[in-house]
Amino acid sequence: MLFTSDNWAGAHPKVIEAISQSASGYVPPHGRTAEDEALKEKFCDIFEHEVSVFLVSTGTAANALALSAMARPGDVIFCHEAAHIRVDECGAPWFFSQGLQLEAVSGGAGKIDGQALQAKVQSVTEGGLNAGRVGGLSLTQATEGGTLYSPAEITELSGLVSGNTTGRRPPVHMDGSRFSNAVAASGTTPAHLTWKNGVDLLSFGGTKNGCICAEALIVFDPTLAESMEFLRKRSGHLISKLRFMTAQFMALMNDNLWLECATIANTHTTALADIVRGSDRMRLAWEPEINEIFAICKRADFQKWSDVGLQAFVWQPTPSDRHLLDEDECLIRLVTSFETEQSHIEALARLI
Amino acid sequence: MLFTSDNWAGAHPKVIEAISQSASGYVPPHGRTAEDEALKEKFCDIFEHEVSVFLVSTGTAANALALSAMARPGDVIFCHEAAHIRVDECGAPWFFSQGLQLEAVSGGAGKIDGQALQAKVQSVTEGGLNAGRVGGLSLTQATEGGTLYSPAEITELSGLVSGNTTGRRPPVHMDGSRFSNAVAASGTTPAHLTWKNGVDLLSFGGTKNGCICAEALIVFDPTLAESMEFLRKRSGHLISKLRFMTAQFMALMNDNLWLECATIANTHTTALADIVRGSDRMRLAWEPEINEIFAICKRADFQKWSDVGLQAFVWQPTPSDRHLLDEDECLIRLVTSFETEQSHIEALARLI
Amino acid sequence: MLFTSDNWAGAHPKVIEAISQSASGYVPPHGRTAEDEALKEKFCDIFEHEVSVFLVSTGTAANALALSAMARPGDVIFCHEAAHIRVDECGAPWFFSQGLQLEAVSGGAGKIDGQALQAKVQSVTEGGLNAGRVGGLSLTQATEGGTLYSPAEITELSGLVSGNTTGRRPPVHMDGSRFSNAVAASGTTPAHLTWKNGVDLLSFGGTKNGCICAEALIVFDPTLAESMEFLRKRSGHLISKLRFMTAQFMALMNDNLWLECATIANTHTTALADIVRGSDRMRLAWEPEINEIFAICKRADFQKWSDVGLQAFVWQPTPSDRHLLDEDECLIRLVTSFETEQSHIEALARLI
Amino acid sequence: MLFTSDNWAGAHPKVIEAISQSASGYVPPHGRTAEDEALKEKFCDIFEHEVSVFLVSTGTAANALALSAMARPGDVIFCHEAAHIRVDECGAPWFFSQGLQLEAVSGGAGKIDGQALQAKVQSVTEGGLNAGRVGGLSLTQATEGGTLYSPAEITELSGLVSGNTTGRRPPVHMDGSRFSNAVAASGTTPAHLTWKNGVDLLSFGGTKNGCICAEALIVFDPTLAESMEFLRKRSGHLISKLRFMTAQFMALMNDNLWLECATIANTHTTALADIVRGSDRMRLAWEPEINEIFAICKRADFQKWSDVGLQAFVWQPTPSDRHLLDEDECLIRLVTSFETEQSHIEALARLI
Repeated sequence: MLFTSDNWAGAHPKVIEAISQSASGYVPPHGRTAEDEALKEKFCDIFEHEVSVFLVSTGTAANALALSAMARPGDVIFCHEAAHIRVDECGAPWFFSQGLQLEAVSGGAGKIDGQALQAKVQSVTEGGLNAGRVGGLSLTQATEGGTLYSPAEITELSGLVSGNTTGRRPPVHMDGSRFSNAVAASGTTPAHLTWKNGVDLLSFGGTKNGCICAEALIVFDPTLAESMEFLRKRSGHLISKLRFMTAQFMALMNDNLWLECATIANTHTTALADIVRGSDRMRLAWEPEINEIFAICKRADFQKWSDVGLQAFVWQPTPSDRHLLDEDECLIRLVTSFETEQSHIEALARLI
Repeated sequence: MLFTSDNWAGAHPKVIEAISQSASGYVPPHGRTAEDEALKEKFCDIFEHEVSVFLVSTGTAANALALSAMARPGDVIFCHEAAHIRVDECGAPWFFSQGLQLEAVSGGAGKIDGQALQAKVQSVTEGGLNAGRVGGLSLTQATEGGTLYSPAEITELSGLVSGNTTGRRPPVHMDGSRFSNAVAASGTTPAHLTWKNGVDLLSFGGTKNGCICAEALIVFDPTLAESMEFLRKRSGHLISKLRFMTAQFMALMNDNLWLECATIANTHTTALADIVRGSDRMRLAWEPEINEIFAICKRADFQKWSDVGLQAFVWQPTPSDRHLLDEDECLIRLVTSFETEQSHIEALARLI
Repeated sequence: MLFTSDNWAGAHPKVIEAISQSASGYVPPHGRTAEDEALKEKFCDIFEHEVSVFLVSTGTAANALALSAMARPGDVIFCHEAAHIRVDECGAPWFFSQGLQLEAVSGGAGKIDGQALQAKVQSVTEGGLNAGRVGGLSLTQATEGGTLYSPAEITELSGLVSGNTTGRRPPVHMDGSRFSNAVAASGTTPAHLTWKNGVDLLSFGGTKNGCICAEALIVFDPTLAESMEFLRKRSGHLISKLRFMTAQFMALMNDNLWLECATIANTHTTALADIVRGSDRMRLAWEPEINEIFAICKRADFQKWSDVGLQAFVWQPTPSDRHLLDEDECLIRLVTSFETEQSHIEALARLI
Repeated sequence: MLFTSDNWAGAHPKVIEAISQSASGYVPPHGRTAEDEALKEKFCDIFEHEVSVFLVSTGTAANALALSAMARPGDVIFCHEAAHIRVDECGAPWFFSQGLQLEAVSGGAGKIDGQALQAKVQSVTEGGLNAGRVGGLSLTQATEGGTLYSPAEITELSGLVSGNTTGRRPPVHMDGSRFSNAVAASGTTPAHLTWKNGVDLLSFGGTKNGCICAEALIVFDPTLAESMEFLRKRSGHLISKLRFMTAQFMALMNDNLWLECATIANTHTTALADIVRGSDRMRLAWEPEINEIFAICKRADFQKWSDVGLQAFVWQPTPSDRHLLDEDECLIRLVTSFETEQSHIEALARLI
């Protein structure tokens, strides 16, 4: 019963095939071939907008590069208290952006609370030089809680950081390591989840959705793309034989494979959620929206299940979510992927 | 006639096959599987030494991580004036190591001149606090000039940076993006080219020798490995599905494929060198030792040849090498790889 | 009625006199004179311990240098959510220590809550590589709330960060911009407030207590002092004519002027506190312990008082203290100094 | 015979008096008082241009802040091979500007050679992404060799870095730790030595010319001043009781004290130069232009003179100047200041 994470899954056969077909022969390194241009055009189509595309090998790199393109000296960038950039990247944002201030904002189920954001923005604004200045916002879509921001919510939160006085609209970054799952589940378009509602840069995840190692940093605002080539190169993230990154992403974006894989993963979670709803030993912490469930059960039960083969991570609830659990309970996260096997879901159903 | 660079080549079929065979099924991310352990053991065998192995996706990352593990506050690290880390990585060393001082040392044919190194070390030592302190040495093997340091030379240069007064033997890094070619050409062992003669960290290149994107940072001194996991993660260089990096390198190291590919590349250059020696329009700037030739010809000739299909880079001679060229001449670099086709070599022979 | 901050005060006449007496004649720059040695000996006496002393011109520099000497790659350093280093230094800790993670810990009246610290430390410990590693603790003494940690509390909090597994006792920094006031008020010795209870580095404030610009970074653990000269120089904080910093601090430390000034400032606050206790329009948020009062009053009252000349800052209560205030109330901070005039205190008494 | 450096001198009595007169009473911290505004107006008058003024306590801070305001990701900034920022600030430029590339340019007597600069600029321009991009120029005025750039030379060198393709005129910084001496000696105006000939930021030295610790970073281009407040604060260089910095500089700038002190220092050097010219044991390496002489003598002689009281530094000649010395000779630097005593000059005359 493997529900650890979607980065435990392998690579999609079509991705492997694309790599294989690109394998032989001399090709200029570092991008700028017709294939790279074609991939860019693909992204322009999908997002209905002229974009710049920077492929890198990890989500941490995509996120940290985005933040470093946003951050001016003294900037404070706001994110959710459980944001991956803040607590799961070993300090990458502060490594890439010397002097960056990242301020945690609370909110239940992984979503930034508007009032809390407003208060934090106000605190920086009133704090004068000592506090720095309002620099931008990073949203995670889907969130670390497996939930979604609606286009209206994205607009609202983006708007809350715009009330500063330094003459620049603070840019908005979206960490989309599971953006494909978000699009597949949302019933709206990539454009509406991003630039149409204020997002300036997107970390578009490929790895968790079938690539071997490929993430696309999509930049909607050309002024934020201006230095990106230099930022990528000097951080060691310009892959020499870039053709192999491009090939992976072309395979993923062609024929909507990205949405197909994401939908499979999401559907497995829908099935899991039904099982949890039918259990009297486990309950949903909140409604899942993509390919992740956060569920609550007794610690003793989880230990027992683990002993017979359940693999899933116990999750540290944020202060905003702590009230959902009793003393003897724990929060667990179950993740499905395009490779999840039906038999594992059935085994879990029998178990709980 | 493609002699641009070995990073224009594709991937070796055995590397592709290994990726393909690793593609399906759930595997823990981030290394620490039996395969990762097996690869580490492989490197221990090859180097006859206990080593730590950190796989990353670019040579720039391997080099910059190595330097950041070496550098203490105030450190000056010495390298050749044409070292890749100094002039071809868009500032990566200074990006990874806030405050690092990298001091250029002159020398012909890509090799550090011992007397010049000694003078620079002395200058830092005598410069007091303002100048910083002697921090270490970075050697390129094979060099940017396609030449080799002998084990004795490595020992000598390493020794020249040891005369400082801060109580620590300054560590030595080796940039080995073409280390395989060096080993294949040198007639000595990997151990003699590294730790047996004072090298503490090695960037072992895989990409130019048949991988799609894989470099191994090999650390011989365990104290320099202590923080490497954190350095790698926070710079976004810990690949999530690390199995695909491990698979590439296992394919390369198994059955001495790394030496086989390197030998092929070197042999092509040997053939090229003979052709150049037989030409009256082109001469060797110095004797090639691996899979790169630096040759001198008239600018007009090179332009003419380029027009009919020769692809190779014009190289900026360093101050140390400038006397080799006449006013109307240029220095060109010809690189071969495991994928170089015989027909290209023959075409060049006919041309010059 | 000037109760804004003690950094609005001027310089003590004895400090000015010391500067004046050092003014003429040639002296070696950058320290290392007999005067510098004498000052060091003075600090050794006061702290009953061999120490290293690094004079700098701002508290932000002293704090950030201390943190950068502590921080290894991947380190998380814990501090109070209202710590000056976290919210009032425009990002200095992250500027000085590329990649540093600073984690906010809650607690009332400016003091870190032990349980909250324990939970945060545990979260990092369990978070694996992604979360980084436990790197140290920064305490503010006196706190941003004008309260004190007892020696026993310092020991307890220091102990809570020691449960990590990386083989090194995580170092403890103390931000003592008002350390003199803390010593004067505490009834214990400088040694007991620092190294005898686990503190490894202390930012000893001089500016708020009568200097023109002088702070002393005191390092108790010699291994943490090893790179400090380089850290100070490369950040531009080694004053060229250091004699003028040394002279200021010698004046301050001689004849216990530091304790005399601090005691005057503290005594003024004691008088103020009595006035607040006697008022029915203002109440103490918590008991003051040094030269700062945090008081609660209606916003309307504060506005009225400001209009007739009260100068004091409205303070943003932390989440831990928010319950102390009603909707229509605000938290204000009143600070006294060695230069506070009795007439201002009397005027406030008449006002409230 | 003290000719070590002008930072061995003390402070001018008028500077001390100004500090003393500012000493008592409450004043808002961090600048923004009428005095700060008046100082700014003073600089605007002197430079015949609207300027921003940022006072800091060291020249290293002024220089590094200037460079960090100039540097974009990937930028290469050019400076003389012996520039203080490159070899005498313990890595400060790389500490303040993560990822900065600083490229050394050769030239005799401390002055950048135009052809050498052109070649370096071309090398970066042709080097593509790997080499970064042309980011700016830092000139030292007066130079480290005690020589001057004429306004025409400043224009010429500034122009040589403008041929890049990134759409921005690369900014020019001037390290003016001895700018006062340069103005006094040059026979031209501060405006002609700076913005009228392409300089965008100036580190205007106060410390070596009579202050206790005060340097003014003067910014002519308002876009480069935009983030300076944040850069200064987050590096710990915003002095809390800024009034004491302002007071020093007001004293220095009032009644042309800065030019008076500089002229005294320069005149002492003129006298020294005559003495050297009359000696058969010592000769001028090149003509001195400010308050520094670089002279050549036998090592044995210098040793002997040192034994009887001559204090001056032996200088490492740059590669460009090495041909001036014989094997048994050394280059020594003699510096005078506003505090140099006539008796020391006379003693030297007797000695050599």
